[in-house]
Amino acid sequence: MGNAVWRGFASDNYAGVHPEIMDALVKVNVGHQVAYGADDVSAALTAKVKEHFGDQAEVFPVFNGTGANVTALQAMMSSWEAVICATSAHINADEGGAPEKVAGLKLWTVPTELGKLTPELIDVHAYGFGDVHRAQPAVVSITQSTEMGTVYSIDELRALVDHAHSLGLKVHLDGARIANGAAALGVTLREMTTDVGIDALSFGGTKNGAMGAEAVIVLNPDAMPGLPFVRKSAMQLSSKMRYISAQLLALLTDDLWLRNAQHANSMAQRLQSAVSVIEGVTVARAAEANAVFAILPADATARLQEQFKFYTWDQVTGEVRWMCSWDTTAEDVDNFAQAVATEVAKSLK
Amino acid sequence: MGNAVWRGFASDNYAGVHPEIMDALVKVNVGHQVAYGADDVSAALTAKVKEHFGDQAEVFPVFNGTGANVTALQAMMSSWEAVICATSAHINADEGGAPEKVAGLKLWTVPTELGKLTPELIDVHAYGFGDVHRAQPAVVSITQSTEMGTVYSIDELRALVDHAHSLGLKVHLDGARIANGAAALGVTLREMTTDVGIDALSFGGTKNGAMGAEAVIVLNPDAMPGLPFVRKSAMQLSSKMRYISAQLLALLTDDLWLRNAQHANSMAQRLQSAVSVIEGVTVARAAEANAVFAILPADATARLQEQFKFYTWDQVTGEVRWMCSWDTTAEDVDNFAQAVATEVAKSLK
Amino acid sequence: MGNAVWRGFASDNYAGVHPEIMDALVKVNVGHQVAYGADDVSAALTAKVKEHFGDQAEVFPVFNGTGANVTALQAMMSSWEAVICATSAHINADEGGAPEKVAGLKLWTVPTELGKLTPELIDVHAYGFGDVHRAQPAVVSITQSTEMGTVYSIDELRALVDHAHSLGLKVHLDGARIANGAAALGVTLREMTTDVGIDALSFGGTKNGAMGAEAVIVLNPDAMPGLPFVRKSAMQLSSKMRYISAQLLALLTDDLWLRNAQHANSMAQRLQSAVSVIEGVTVARAAEANAVFAILPADATARLQEQFKFYTWDQVTGEVRWMCSWDTTAEDVDNFAQAVATEVAKSLK
Amino acid sequence: MGNAVWRGFASDNYAGVHPEIMDALVKVNVGHQVAYGADDVSAALTAKVKEHFGDQAEVFPVFNGTGANVTALQAMMSSWEAVICATSAHINADEGGAPEKVAGLKLWTVPTELGKLTPELIDVHAYGFGDVHRAQPAVVSITQSTEMGTVYSIDELRALVDHAHSLGLKVHLDGARIANGAAALGVTLREMTTDVGIDALSFGGTKNGAMGAEAVIVLNPDAMPGLPFVRKSAMQLSSKMRYISAQLLALLTDDLWLRNAQHANSMAQRLQSAVSVIEGVTVARAAEANAVFAILPADATARLQEQFKFYTWDQVTGEVRWMCSWDTTAEDVDNFAQAVATEVAKSLK
Repeated sequence: MGNAVWRGFASDNYAGVHPEIMDALVKVNVGHQVAYGADDVSAALTAKVKEHFGDQAEVFPVFNGTGANVTALQAMMSSWEAVICATSAHINADEGGAPEKVAGLKLWTVPTELGKLTPELIDVHAYGFGDVHRAQPAVVSITQSTEMGTVYSIDELRALVDHAHSLGLKVHLDGARIANGAAALGVTLREMTTDVGIDALSFGGTKNGAMGAEAVIVLNPDAMPGLPFVRKSAMQLSSKMRYISAQLLALLTDDLWLRNAQHANSMAQRLQSAVSVIEGVTVARAAEANAVFAILPADATARLQEQFKFYTWDQVTGEVRWMCSWDTTAEDVDNFAQAVATEVAKSLK
Repeated sequence: MGNAVWRGFASDNYAGVHPEIMDALVKVNVGHQVAYGADDVSAALTAKVKEHFGDQAEVFPVFNGTGANVTALQAMMSSWEAVICATSAHINADEGGAPEKVAGLKLWTVPTELGKLTPELIDVHAYGFGDVHRAQPAVVSITQSTEMGTVYSIDELRALVDHAHSLGLKVHLDGARIANGAAALGVTLREMTTDVGIDALSFGGTKNGAMGAEAVIVLNPDAMPGLPFVRKSAMQLSSKMRYISAQLLALLTDDLWLRNAQHANSMAQRLQSAVSVIEGVTVARAAEANAVFAILPADATARLQEQFKFYTWDQVTGEVRWMCSWDTTAEDVDNFAQAVATEVAKSLK
Repeated sequence: MGNAVWRGFASDNYAGVHPEIMDALVKVNVGHQVAYGADDVSAALTAKVKEHFGDQAEVFPVFNGTGANVTALQAMMSSWEAVICATSAHINADEGGAPEKVAGLKLWTVPTELGKLTPELIDVHAYGFGDVHRAQPAVVSITQSTEMGTVYSIDELRALVDHAHSLGLKVHLDGARIANGAAALGVTLREMTTDVGIDALSFGGTKNGAMGAEAVIVLNPDAMPGLPFVRKSAMQLSSKMRYISAQLLALLTDDLWLRNAQHANSMAQRLQSAVSVIEGVTVARAAEANAVFAILPADATARLQEQFKFYTWDQVTGEVRWMCSWDTTAEDVDNFAQAVATEVAKSLK
Repeated sequence: MGNAVWRGFASDNYAGVHPEIMDALVKVNVGHQVAYGADDVSAALTAKVKEHFGDQAEVFPVFNGTGANVTALQAMMSSWEAVICATSAHINADEGGAPEKVAGLKLWTVPTELGKLTPELIDVHAYGFGDVHRAQPAVVSITQSTEMGTVYSIDELRALVDHAHSLGLKVHLDGARIANGAAALGVTLREMTTDVGIDALSFGGTKNGAMGAEAVIVLNPDAMPGLPFVRKSAMQLSSKMRYISAQLLALLTDDLWLRNAQHANSMAQRLQSAVSVIEGVTVARAAEANAVFAILPADATARLQEQFKFYTWDQVTGEVRWMCSWDTTAEDVDNFAQAVATEVAKSLK
């Protein structure tokens, strides 16, 4: 895989930067701008975010998804409080312990079947209010689309948020793949967030065609007054912020966020369709966004991984994860599906 | 200052991205690359860093200067240890408490005259070894060029590092403006770091023409074995790292780092020369790198700040700071000096 | 329950201080002693601990169980590492998030049936070594006797420790009720800890008749060289330490630790026997130490809680926890069992 | 110093427990009490604290002085805020970095002449409000009596608190030796705290005759609503709390706190008088509470330290610190002063 034209299905962050975003970066590279967010581009981004999420929305660009999640959560909580999340949540499983280590966040984790919390699963941990021995549940964090490739419906989101709010809990949405979620549901960003009552979210740009641009978007400003300070103390404040804002602005302009996500999702559908008919391959669960999970023989996986990058998701079951991105082509998918068919066939002999 | 052509002297991060760096970003934007640093560009950066700093050097790109400093320091220390630094150090004064809040770092601060530590100033805090009541001094952190616009000589660096090492202390260099320091001294990066015994440094790209690119460069790998883990848990690990690596690689190629720094430093000299002859302006201390500090009448400052962005450094004395950057032009300097002359003259009437 | 003679079954820390311990406190209250542990009583404690746990054992008295656990664990780990423990572990469920909040500890929790980890349950989390996205498993923490009233056998402990060590993981034992565990097994403290390879433990005195005295006992000094410093920075270093050491020394003298634990355990057996024959009461699991868990009708529980203090352990099933302590008398047990019989009978009418 | 009758001047925590406090511990050692503070003794303590400090006062017993300080400060602040204190403050100099390491507290330190802050010294750090790059000043922490043996007057306290409040800053008082301060001024505890506007304080019992008992006393409950939770997560919640409450209750009963402090202060006066007339001894500053600071020849100090425990305060000047405690006798002082005279005379020969 030493040449520049190899294609991977390991992660949507193996892809490069979408040309419209690269153009935006070049375009803002003129003259001086005030640092740390008081620049013209960031002002334009704020206006654009309000268009998409509603007038009360505020946007705070940050560097990466872990940074967005921890900054948002820390700003939503007091030092003695805790977050309820799925065991499979990125904040629990994949952030090197940053929530605990940077911000002392206690995570009350609960196993889920498909990476999705429910009111009932919130209740597993939503107790002990006022008991000092129990880190106080304060925020529910969910991911859309989830780490397991599933997507909450609008009704599921609303039920979950209403239940959380009824218990005095705020709701944070990890939107590292928020675009893929909204595209899958066919709704606007606002319908999936502001309108269901989400208090704050991590808006992901990087996996959707940006170079490196995420943001905390605050929908309920009362929920996190100290966010500007937390962003700095959490080391997520960019000096030349115009370049992060420009990426996010480009994504939110002319529906680039949606075009990219729709494309990635459709490639996942194409891949799922192609592999689902291969004997020896079992689709582990329906692809709802841009991830396909499938179970195939271990030796086939090993041979495929010599040709294509992708991760084994579960060593025990042999489940693998294939991510499609904004730049995945139909040809990429077809070539890959063909290789899967070939290698799995060898295993079945 | 609403149009795109205003010029500021507030900070070297008001400037944009150098064209060679923007070109590098465009050039690496091809195909898929493995995320989180296992990409071809990052590999090339590692090789280039070894050219500049020596074979044992390892480079870990991060997002910003605060991130570089805290990641490096945390990786150099155990949880009960402390850092000796100048009161004026960026880690103490300007990082929103990130060292304490993210990593629990205790800072033993000592006032300095010109932002520079000395062996004697290290001794102010280098005691109490073995006493559990005293957060154990473990690392000395210095800045080159300093927050006060001064530059350590090679001899000063060597004396300071030797003294620290003789006490069992490691030395970290905050190189947010390392290029300006080396350019001022007329030495290579290696002569100013590896060769004097620095254990690790924060290499600053952003202020020197990058979009947003810093790195921890480890010169003494034994000093910080856990750095890759700390970078992740400190939320400083970029997914599409090729784009950060490309910026640093461009800076280290064809001496762009040096060209940019030499230019910024020379503009500071030009500015200092111009203002030093203005009646009513006192140059506070000799400009050794790309910052000019001057004292002028408060009302002149106020009028100037309506036309140009810059910071008042000391409200009491009326000292202001003027930073020059890679894109500051001689015309910028001359126009600004003219304005200073005009406004100060009004104050003296 | 306003008078001084009421008896509770809520917790073994509702009991007072054993007379031999109070006598020891009075006896050491003579003259001056060096503070912070360099006193004669602490020296005697160290010698006594070596008698019980072996020559390499070192003892570090602390204030409470949470303090002992967090101090030990933090000293055993680097900042990027994590602890594997049962979901029901006190460090996860009952310490107000102190491990995360004080020390940034990431807990990899796993559900268990009876509060006990196994080699297989360790394996649920013992993976991802070297992967920066995964907080690195470094320590396994177990509790003896467990939060669910069960006791690991010597064989279970050995298998678990051997497995952990084979993976490069250290083992910490939360011994808030270590005496009850050893008494239940009929083994020495050493046989249950040093001899099975435990690296460090939290030794609990308070629940076993002390006023407030716990300790970190280090069995493998290489595992935690910084412990003295961590104890101070974690705010667990007593100034007049002779008074904590005196309590622990008294417990370890003339087998007071064992006498108290045997008594508490036998009272739990008596209580279990008495209630197991009451119609409408189901013993939830066999009492192996000093806790009895039983399921009874909710209204009977409510009426009983007006007369006796105890906790409902599981609101859904109606399971309650009854703890016996060093000062629980046979009469206390019989009176309480009688009340249980009376109130449950009312519920069954 | 191997026998039980040696007397030290190193620290007031070398002394033992006052008989009235030991009696109180024995007296409360009857029957069961609810754990974690819901006991009869703690209720009585709360009532007693209100007598001394006013009706709005709330008391939260903790284990030690560092614990009291950090718990109080963390509860008074948001995660991005900072404390202004003297460089010599115990929280900065002597707590092993606990404020930074346990709670991420940023300390803005300022040198003082006599360990006392002033409105002007507060102003050294009380700026940058709203600037995210500056950890936001939120609390001023002072010590009474100070670490340098000095005592704020009521007027000094009022001026300092009024100034802090006018800036929106809360005021915390580290009262590890609050009794010595009040005794020195001849005022009630209330006059020195509530009446001057202190928001919260660390009340020290241990150095004043207790076994190990400190407390956070909240005078302005609005300033720290989360304190009960912080006390637990900071590992400062005692299970058998009646025994800590009993010590504090005894101190506040029949003016034991005052008797002990008056005695210790008067012994310091006696010692100062005795040594001030010795040729070769210079009293470094007037003893205002229970500490005497003196400068004497280094070799005399060395010989004295073979006979008596005390600390050298400043290696450079040869200044030593001598603390008197509730159990220091006139004979102790006279013997010691005689020894000082003898050893210093040898040095002068």
